Amino acid sequence: MKSYRKELWFKTPERRAYVNITGQIQNEIDQSGIQEGLCLVNAMHITSSVYINDDERGLISDYDKWLEKLAPHAPVDQYRHNDTGEDNADAHMKRQVMGREVVVAITQGKLDFGPWEQIFYGEFDGRRKKRILVKIIGE
Amino acid sequence: MKSYRKELWFKTPERRAYVNITGQIQNEIDQSGIQEGLCLVNAMHITSSVYINDDERGLISDYDKWLEKLAPHAPVDQYRHNDTGEDNADAHMKRQVMGREVVVAITQGKLDFGPWEQIFYGEFDGRRKKRILVKIIGE
Amino acid sequence: MKSYRKELWFKTPERRAYVNITGQIQNEIDQSGIQEGLCLVNAMHITSSVYINDDERGLISDYDKWLEKLAPHAPVDQYRHNDTGEDNADAHMKRQVMGREVVVAITQGKLDFGPWEQIFYGEFDGRRKKRILVKIIGE
Repeated sequence: MKSYRKELWFKTPERRAYVNITGQIQNEIDQSGIQEGLCLVNAMHITSSVYINDDERGLISDYDKWLEKLAPHAPVDQYRHNDTGEDNADAHMKRQVMGREVVVAITQGKLDFGPWEQIFYGEFDGRRKKRILVKIIGE
Repeated sequence: MKSYRKELWFKTPERRAYVNITGQIQNEIDQSGIQEGLCLVNAMHITSSVYINDDERGLISDYDKWLEKLAPHAPVDQYRHNDTGEDNADAHMKRQVMGREVVVAITQGKLDFGPWEQIFYGEFDGRRKKRILVKIIGE
Repeated sequence: MKSYRKELWFKTPERRAYVNITGQIQNEIDQSGIQEGLCLVNAMHITSSVYINDDERGLISDYDKWLEKLAPHAPVDQYRHNDTGEDNADAHMKRQVMGREVVVAITQGKLDFGPWEQIFYGEFDGRRKKRILVKIIGE
């Protein structure tokens, strides 16, 4: 069994952002040399997500509006977490809806995906450097 | 390390459906011959889910009503994704709540499950052929 | 490839509880002797979650309030699942929002985590004995 590990860094200019990282993940799989296995991609921060869905501008706008409806940012004083001096309690909730991680299959050295699957980094409290982890095991 | 891959196809007659696939997944584990490992089961489409919960008729009805409350199908013009000619933006959201994938343990060749765990295919935009992926690694 | 399996038991005195289990999971990794691999931690019951987020008292209070807003416990007769004599339909929903499982990377024998990542057992229908599963594969 082989294993491979890489951190990828992001700093989005906006508080919330949705970044297609599919190509970067395939690059890491290529680097790993692993042909058959599983690839874990997870946010290393607790106010961001890694998720799989469509790279369509309208949908991303819909997600953003919907997450803001399910867990509004303001007023920030509605959240006890923000009593600590933070203003990102909503980001901890949005991240739970979208998820921390994806586990994807690697087959013949490639992401084993359906036609529209794309991996996204979902940022809900950006404007600072944050990381994701790529861990691959297989052969 | 051994690996095994299989696609399973579904076409549900309704837009939304919840299909117990536990037996089919155990069959694939049997086929793989893997005794100890991990089994990834993921939707290959971005408007459906694979999730684990109870096979109880009332609960499935509750889920359906709840998902429709969190992300209503109509009016379809409330979603910018539907400006592309689709009418399934809500399905992309329902799928995020229920999740894309499950990772399950295989122990002594069996799904290593608690008493009520059942694997479901959750369809939110059916009436057409769609796939899930089963990828197993182990020994 | 090595594999390791352990069940951990919980009985929380309240209906809903959020228990930091990070140390217990690291203990299991230590026991396994696995240095590089993947660790699956999943609820074996369908009204509880395993998730990763912050161990901050205010946030946990916010989560609890938010989950109760998304899927209220009462009135219990709003859910068809509760017609079976249960009163925990809401717990099946809260668990879907927070997730069944996490898959975490093991690197050099340690949980490969960002600075604030902590693993929680999320209980939504407690006051009885329930289990989680830890399954580790690697080398």
